[in-house]
Amino acid sequence: MTTLCTAPETGLNAVILRMIERILNRVNALSQGGPGWTRPSYSPLETAAHLIIEEEAHALGMEVRRDHGGNLIARMPGRDPQLPPIWCGSHLDTVAEGGAYDGQAGVAAALALVAAMRSQGITPEADFVVVVTRAEESVWFPVSYIGSRAATGQLLAADLQALRVDTGRSLADHMRDEGGDPEALMTAVPPAPARFLEFHIEQGPVLETAEEPFAIVTAIRGGLRYRAARLHGVWAHSGGAPREGRADAVVAFADLVMAMDRVWEEILARGADLTVTFGRVSAASPAHAMAKVAGVLDFCIDLRSDDEAVLDAADEALKAAIAEIEAARPGIRFDLGLQSRSRPAQLSQSMAEWVAGGAARLGLSPRRMLSGGGHDAAAFATAGWESVMVFIRNRNGSHCPDEGMNPADLALAVEAVYTALSGNAGP
Amino acid sequence: MTTLCTAPETGLNAVILRMIERILNRVNALSQGGPGWTRPSYSPLETAAHLIIEEEAHALGMEVRRDHGGNLIARMPGRDPQLPPIWCGSHLDTVAEGGAYDGQAGVAAALALVAAMRSQGITPEADFVVVVTRAEESVWFPVSYIGSRAATGQLLAADLQALRVDTGRSLADHMRDEGGDPEALMTAVPPAPARFLEFHIEQGPVLETAEEPFAIVTAIRGGLRYRAARLHGVWAHSGGAPREGRADAVVAFADLVMAMDRVWEEILARGADLTVTFGRVSAASPAHAMAKVAGVLDFCIDLRSDDEAVLDAADEALKAAIAEIEAARPGIRFDLGLQSRSRPAQLSQSMAEWVAGGAARLGLSPRRMLSGGGHDAAAFATAGWESVMVFIRNRNGSHCPDEGMNPADLALAVEAVYTALSGNAGP
Repeated sequence: MTTLCTAPETGLNAVILRMIERILNRVNALSQGGPGWTRPSYSPLETAAHLIIEEEAHALGMEVRRDHGGNLIARMPGRDPQLPPIWCGSHLDTVAEGGAYDGQAGVAAALALVAAMRSQGITPEADFVVVVTRAEESVWFPVSYIGSRAATGQLLAADLQALRVDTGRSLADHMRDEGGDPEALMTAVPPAPARFLEFHIEQGPVLETAEEPFAIVTAIRGGLRYRAARLHGVWAHSGGAPREGRADAVVAFADLVMAMDRVWEEILARGADLTVTFGRVSAASPAHAMAKVAGVLDFCIDLRSDDEAVLDAADEALKAAIAEIEAARPGIRFDLGLQSRSRPAQLSQSMAEWVAGGAARLGLSPRRMLSGGGHDAAAFATAGWESVMVFIRNRNGSHCPDEGMNPADLALAVEAVYTALSGNAGP
Repeated sequence: MTTLCTAPETGLNAVILRMIERILNRVNALSQGGPGWTRPSYSPLETAAHLIIEEEAHALGMEVRRDHGGNLIARMPGRDPQLPPIWCGSHLDTVAEGGAYDGQAGVAAALALVAAMRSQGITPEADFVVVVTRAEESVWFPVSYIGSRAATGQLLAADLQALRVDTGRSLADHMRDEGGDPEALMTAVPPAPARFLEFHIEQGPVLETAEEPFAIVTAIRGGLRYRAARLHGVWAHSGGAPREGRADAVVAFADLVMAMDRVWEEILARGADLTVTFGRVSAASPAHAMAKVAGVLDFCIDLRSDDEAVLDAADEALKAAIAEIEAARPGIRFDLGLQSRSRPAQLSQSMAEWVAGGAARLGLSPRRMLSGGGHDAAAFATAGWESVMVFIRNRNGSHCPDEGMNPADLALAVEAVYTALSGNAGP
């Protein structure tokens, strides 16, 4: 004879899991179409996703407001208004043909924490604030962490002039369309730095390989990018142009890719942290054809490291490789275009210990690790907020339709933070 | 005191030059828009260009008809109907954003020869036939020399099913739209092999560098192409995916480009003839982004040689390079797709001597050279026609808006052929 009983822990986990799945389902019903999910930054679809969270936050009895950047801020008052609040959240925009969890999971987790506290009748010591940021995916505007930098007073007037790649309209215009007020934002006084917590899927395969459900992130890599680099060669006939006279943009590009691959290997070999990625590559305009030696090729390059000096060294190596290729290949000329950067961010040691304390009470000891991707937490950390991230195990990487997070892993991480949150005022 | 006098030679050259410029101006008024000129194969624009030639041929008193492939055939009867006619012409379609002379110059030259004979009251010994072929530029349909193969009974039923890259509709449908009859074409008896002459701009810089106005072509390189090759990698996050686990389609492609560049160098070093070109390259679909390691890349590769065995050797080297890259880079897989080929074509020694004879009477000794690009003359030669080409000096290569032929160079070449034509019945 078997007796089934529902332990209080199971009840709590069920509340958390139910909210997570509910938020993911509702938000992911919104997309420009497949494959995967596409919700551009400052698009009506992103706004519609924010409205879902507003509705859910109201249902949980929270006060909801928006800042001038259009970020959604929902507050659950704590017992002690003198304590610095804990903001928890992430973003709901996606890359083109992105996945079901990048950003969404962090928002779902924040609401699940509120639902968990409500279900157990707990009032947190400090205010608990669910924040849904705008425009975290910088594929749409060539600016990093737009929403979280707007929320923390770091967005610059020049950033507002950035153009969205698909529409060609400015950030200011799109912000205004979606209910923001860019002019007011520029003069607004940001909230005093407090505490920020972000749940997010791991972009790499580390936790999946190690079979661990979640981890605590101690630092976020910074990035150095040339988003709109162009390589000029000389158009020529594929059968009529002799080898010695060619300035083939495709061959010169391949030369650069292989040179930067060797630079990457060398920098890793001396123990430094770096990633090198050529993202979009196009020699496929109407002017390009089978029967033409390419006279132009567009590309981008993305360098990331936890150390700014390494980014500078890689950037120098890139320019040296280009100079060498231009010297060796007459007729070839690179134009890297504008550089954009995001700084490496160290996260909060004390908040990491606070999360670890909650996990420990569940018998878990999550690893500490580095984030390869940039996240809103980096912008909060840069603004002086005590910030921490919790990475959730995920298959198939991120920014693709196949992102594979198990909501049970996220629920377990939320339960660990709930345990920390309900046990004390935080770090 | 200076006396100006108009020698008969000058008058002839003026008639030729006037007709060349008239045809070029009229045809080049037709384009889908710039930069350069775009008249797709079997498009209404190509048909409109054919109608201009029909009008001009009628004005020169020629009989005009069209074959089932939609090629225009205009006849100037000769004195001896027993002699094999001399067909002279080229095509009026262009690549996307092509130039003002590739194809057009050859048609203009053919009409200029008729105008020259009319102006001097000359009836050629053999019939002189101006032919305007269809669809020579195989960027639109993945089939070589469509019009000239149709004219000589070499087009296959399977070729008719090829799809135009921009419309996705079949060659048969487009042919029908532009007045052709693909069903009748399949059962038609082609004309008996006769003689074919094509004027064309040189695609390479040889004559420009040597400061020579024209040359006689002795052979045409054949080609081996993979037009729609695809490289599969694994999508990943640019900052989160460690170097060792990546299957980056862009890096694997660069590896292949550099490998084939080495193969090319080696094959040339042993004295064989070869060109290697990667034309269109695209890792720029909506799924590609700055922040993604590319999971897929589309490319094409074009190999050309005057020797089929060299094409086979280069193809083998390509497959070996791919196998090596796939073995060295787990997760990378190449799919070359369909191979298309055109055979190297030897041109007529006796027709070359006949053109050289005309040139010699003008005090000129044009060089003999190889054609790197494929031309209608290759299809006629393959069908057993005695064929020859005359290359005209040209700046900036072909298949680009900057094609730079001086009409005076073409007029001089036409005058050389006129001299051969008016002096005897041909080779």
